[in-house]
Parts: sequence; structure tokens; C-alpha cells
Amino acid sequence: MDHQFLDGYRETDLGKVREKMKAQSLGSLIVSDLSVIRWLSGFSGSSARLLVTPERFVLFTDFRYREQAAKEVGLAETVIASDGFAQEVVSGSYPLGSAVGIQSDSMTWDEAQRLCGRLGPLIAAVPLVSFFDDLRMVKNRIELMHLQRAASISEQVLEMILPLICPQVSELDIAAEITYQHKKLGAEKDSFDPIVTSGARAAMPHAKPTAEHFRPGELIVIDMGCVWEGYASDQTRTVALGRVSPEDRAIYRIVAEAQQLGLTIARCGMSAAELDGTVRGYIDRRGYGEAFGHSLGHGVGIDVHEEPRISSKNCRLLVENMVFTIEPGIYLPGRLGVRIEDTVVLRSDGAQPFQRFTKKLLEL
Amino acid sequence: MDHQFLDGYRETDLGKVREKMKAQSLGSLIVSDLSVIRWLSGFSGSSARLLVTPERFVLFTDFRYREQAAKEVGLAETVIASDGFAQEVVSGSYPLGSAVGIQSDSMTWDEAQRLCGRLGPLIAAVPLVSFFDDLRMVKNRIELMHLQRAASISEQVLEMILPLICPQVSELDIAAEITYQHKKLGAEKDSFDPIVTSGARAAMPHAKPTAEHFRPGELIVIDMGCVWEGYASDQTRTVALGRVSPEDRAIYRIVAEAQQLGLTIARCGMSAAELDGTVRGYIDRRGYGEAFGHSLGHGVGIDVHEEPRISSKNCRLLVENMVFTIEPGIYLPGRLGVRIEDTVVLRSDGAQPFQRFTKKLLEL
Repeated sequence: MDHQFLDGYRETDLGKVREKMKAQSLGSLIVSDLSVIRWLSGFSGSSARLLVTPERFVLFTDFRYREQAAKEVGLAETVIASDGFAQEVVSGSYPLGSAVGIQSDSMTWDEAQRLCGRLGPLIAAVPLVSFFDDLRMVKNRIELMHLQRAASISEQVLEMILPLICPQVSELDIAAEITYQHKKLGAEKDSFDPIVTSGARAAMPHAKPTAEHFRPGELIVIDMGCVWEGYASDQTRTVALGRVSPEDRAIYRIVAEAQQLGLTIARCGMSAAELDGTVRGYIDRRGYGEAFGHSLGHGVGIDVHEEPRISSKNCRLLVENMVFTIEPGIYLPGRLGVRIEDTVVLRSDGAQPFQRFTKKLLEL
Repeated sequence: MDHQFLDGYRETDLGKVREKMKAQSLGSLIVSDLSVIRWLSGFSGSSARLLVTPERFVLFTDFRYREQAAKEVGLAETVIASDGFAQEVVSGSYPLGSAVGIQSDSMTWDEAQRLCGRLGPLIAAVPLVSFFDDLRMVKNRIELMHLQRAASISEQVLEMILPLICPQVSELDIAAEITYQHKKLGAEKDSFDPIVTSGARAAMPHAKPTAEHFRPGELIVIDMGCVWEGYASDQTRTVALGRVSPEDRAIYRIVAEAQQLGLTIARCGMSAAELDGTVRGYIDRRGYGEAFGHSLGHGVGIDVHEEPRISSKNCRLLVENMVFTIEPGIYLPGRLGVRIEDTVVLRSDGAQPFQRFTKKLLEL
């Protein structure tokens, strides 16, 4: 059922892709980024290229994926390219026009060279960067349903694992449990390796879980997400094992207030940089500006990190149905880390988080 | 401790890389493939480039990985490239020579274009394909230790999950359990998403586990592996829930005999194609040649699929301390799949499997 619903939206997106091709005078377009391929065609295999022309829409894959393509792909015709994609696409069976767009930000230099070599002198290869970003950033109704479901599964898992945190278990134990429960609740997989870090280790925003056990009085950062029907979730909560010091509680409160500020002020028409800057300014005025070393957030969709980046460098205006995270943090090396993150969809009246889990400091 | 042991071997490998650079008249070499970066420097972060010159060996990464690089990297000097790697490498601080080797099979066309633009007209960018394969294929003593440990962990997990297989659980349940137990036993992660497929679904060699339950009398393919200290394991066993038909048992026996044949005949000096061909010939003579649609095996190391490919198209000669899989299979669409796989290290006296798990048909 999903298949047919989605094909309606895919047809709309395909139309927009073709409009954009026309505007850039491209006779055809070769898609090599697997996330874009899944977004536009539904195909989730690991070996694929898409060809888009004004009239045709073709998925090339190999024999291993014949059955899977038949199940997943409705709108595109599927071609099993036995001698490789490059050979097939220049076989003369496909009208390429005089300019072929190529995703130069996903295709390797080597593949691009080989392809250009085969195209011959009459067809120009046009390198394209971020060609699909503006189309993928804005989500349709089905995508929003999937994103909500992924978020809800991961919240259920968070509920399940919090009671397990005690001095007898390690960060790795909890991380393994998160992955396990995601799958048991039907998610395809984690959207990224869960981050479970406590005490001073949490001061590294990207630290991996260790075999160290939890210690009373320490803050614990839990950053996790899963994939449902190809779409990712991403959320972070910081909790404590037992009572924390008043100083740590005060830092937690600043992050929680900053995060709430982000949720409150996010608006269509605001730039990503403005949203980042306002939240950053709040943390800065509380004296922790230097301790917030990463950007405020990032888009979430088929990729767990995609456009729009919510950073001080991104002047892009936020529009309705964009989906992105709001995740300020404070990191004090050798001491602690705090991060609180929701993924939100931007509606005409403001940001609506997919997550409902409390942001009060839980002292377990 | 590992760190220092490994640096000895890394120094040897770095020497070989520099010899190869010299032979190809490269004044410097930029490494962009994260697996090669881990192999040569020890760094496991997701944002990195390596620069190798006759005198210098530099890891570029960003500020998020400062602490991790300090922990993991001994031989290379670490530089935090705040303005991006391309900007840093052409800053004049590094002697690049007149020809810079670039991994064109891992760097995107876009990054290569930007880098070439910055190099200016006096420095040539030389695209390199498979530059490190022959060096990475042959494993040293420490790598073999890690590969053995990864295989042993995964065998323990296989022992643990087999008793769970019954009509009340699904393929996805068992797959989730495998992932969980890998982590609980200390592995970094799965080396690939576990394949657990039963009955007719096992006829697709790369099928994903489903929510379908196991049914008595069906064969079940379990293909799994984990990562230990960066090195992967890979093994497959086919088991049955209850008694299978004599016909299915006969097919199992052919695969088991073919796999044993591969283990027995593998020798230094033999080509990969010859090894594939001999095992394929055996299955072919038993009437199932067309049902064995993939190559016999692949190298295993930091990547779970690397060189040497054991395929009919690979004329490369096998040499001592190569590590690769031997995994024949028979797939009958709509009916069943059988695959049996060990990962072996090639010694002077033949193939030595890392796995010890029985290859008799287990009827659970």
C-alpha cells in the first residue's frame, strides 16, 4: 500500500527534478547517491544508478537485486545491467541529450572519468553538487508519517532502557540494548551507532560508548535514532544516575532553556543561521558560548544528516515541512557534557517536535 | 599496548607505500579512503585525510577528533585542519612534489576538482585506482590476531543463538539477537547486517531478514560477522529446523563437499580464478552450476569485502597470509538456499580456517 501512496509523491518529485533539469539545459541526469535513489525510486539496494530523461526514468541494478527491485520500485523501469552501468547507459538505448548531469559530490573521480570517456566528444558531462537538496529538504505527508514513526519507536526504546541504567552496567551494555530494542520494535536498524557517554567522556560530542560503568552523580548523554521505511530519527536526552551537583544541574537548565528557545522561535522565513545564532547567543550570555562547539542542528530524512544544516554559516531560509534537529549542548572537557535534541517539522505556525519525552532532568 | 605493536607493522607498510610512490614518481600521496586511513595510521574517525611524502606522514582531521586521534595515532603527526583539508594541504606547509597521487576510486569527482584547482598548474594530480590493494591483502601477525578474535566472537554468538531458533521466533528476532550478542561480547559492531533467511527466502543470497517465523523442515542460512579492533569476520552456516527432506539434505551435502574441496585445494601460487573454477566445477558436475550465481569468496580485513576477490575473473595469484572467504552456495528460486562459508588465512601449507564450527547439517 505504501508503495502506491508513495509513487504519487514520487511522481511530483520526479516532475520537479525534470523542471530543474530543463532550467539547467540538461538532456539527462545520472543519479549515483543511494539516498537520492531511494528517495526518488524507492529502491533500497546497495548497487544502483538512476537515469532521468524528459521521457524516461530507469533504475539500473544487478541480478542480485532483481526481486527486490520488482517489489520496491513502481515508477521507474528496472534494467539489470549485466555488463555494468556505464556500458549500459551508453549503449544507445537511452536518449542522453547533449548534456548529462552527474552527481559529482557522490560519484568517484574514477567512475566519472570512465563515464566521460564512454560518453564521447558530443555529450558533455555536467558536474552537479547538491542538486537534490532543496527538493529533499521539504518533506511530504508520507515522509512525515515515516519520520514520526521512527521517532516514536526510538522514544519507546528510550523508555525501556532508562530503568536499566545502574552502576552494574556499562555504556556499551546500554548501547547494545538500544540497537537490539530498535530492531525488536520493527525498525530497519539504528540510524547511527547509539552514543551513550557518561561523566567526563560525555564532553566529547562524538565519543563512542565504552566498557566503563555508570557512576552515581554523573550526567549521561544518550543520542539515538532508528530507521523506519528508510527514514531516520534522531534524539538526545541527558539524564543522571542519582543526584547531581547544583552546578551540573544549573548547566543542564541552561541547555534545556536554550533548546526550548530554539523550539519556540523557529519560524518559516527565518534563516538557519538566525536560528542557530539566537540559541547560541543565549548560551553565550550565560557564559558557556565556547563550550557549545557544534552547530545547532541538521536536517533529517533518508539521511540522518542532511540539509538544512542549522549552522551559523547557512543563510538558507527555513520553509514549511522542513525537518531538522534542534540540539544545543554544553561540553566541559574533563568534567561533563549535556545535550538535548528533538527533531522537528516546521509548520506554518512554528516547530512541532516528533519527540514527546520529558526534558526535565531525570535523576535515576 | 596494541598501539605500539601495530606501529611497528605500520612503519613497514608505510615503507612499502613510499617505495611504491617512488616507483610511480609520486612526490606525495593523498589518502581519502577511511579503511586505508585506519590500516595505515590507526585512526578510526569519520573525518580524515592522510598525506604521505618521502619525509612526512600527516593525518588531517577536525577538532571533534582531536582526543581520539591522540589516542589512536602514533606514527603520523596529527593536524587539525580548521579551514578544511584542501585548504590546509596547499598551504605551503607540506612538500607535495610535482605529482600528487590521489585515490580516484574513493575521492568524489567534486573533491578532486576542487583539490586540482587549488594545486595550481605546476603540480599534477595523478588518479590512482586500487593503489593499496596488494599491500592490504597480505596480513601481518597482529592483523591475523584481530581477525581470529573477530571470528571467535562471532562463533560464540552463533552457538548462543542456535538454541533460540523455533517456530515462535522470526528471522528478524534472531538477527537482532546476533547484533546484540556481538556487542555484548565486546565487538565494535556487526561487520555487516546479519543475514538470517529461511525456506524460499534463502534463495536470494542477499535477502534481508523478515518478520516471518521459522517453519519445521526448512533450511536456514545464517551469514554473520563482527568487527574487533577494526578487523572484520565473516562466516555462514546453514542449519535446519527439524528434519529436512532427503533432497534438501543431498543439496546441503554437495555444498558442504564443495566448501571442503575449496579448503583442501587452496594453495599459494594458485590463482583466485583457479580456486573459484575448481569449486564451481564440482558443483557444476553435480548439476547445480547455474544455482551457484556468485563468486566463491572475497578478501576480509578492515573491509569485510576487499581484495582478493575469489572469482572466475581474477587472475591474481594467491600468496601466504592472504585472508579470504570460501563460500559456495546453491540457490533454488522458490525453494531453498544453502551456503557454507569460512574465512581462511593462506599459509605455506594451505588454507587455515578461522572458524571451527561444525559443517555437519544441524537439524534443530
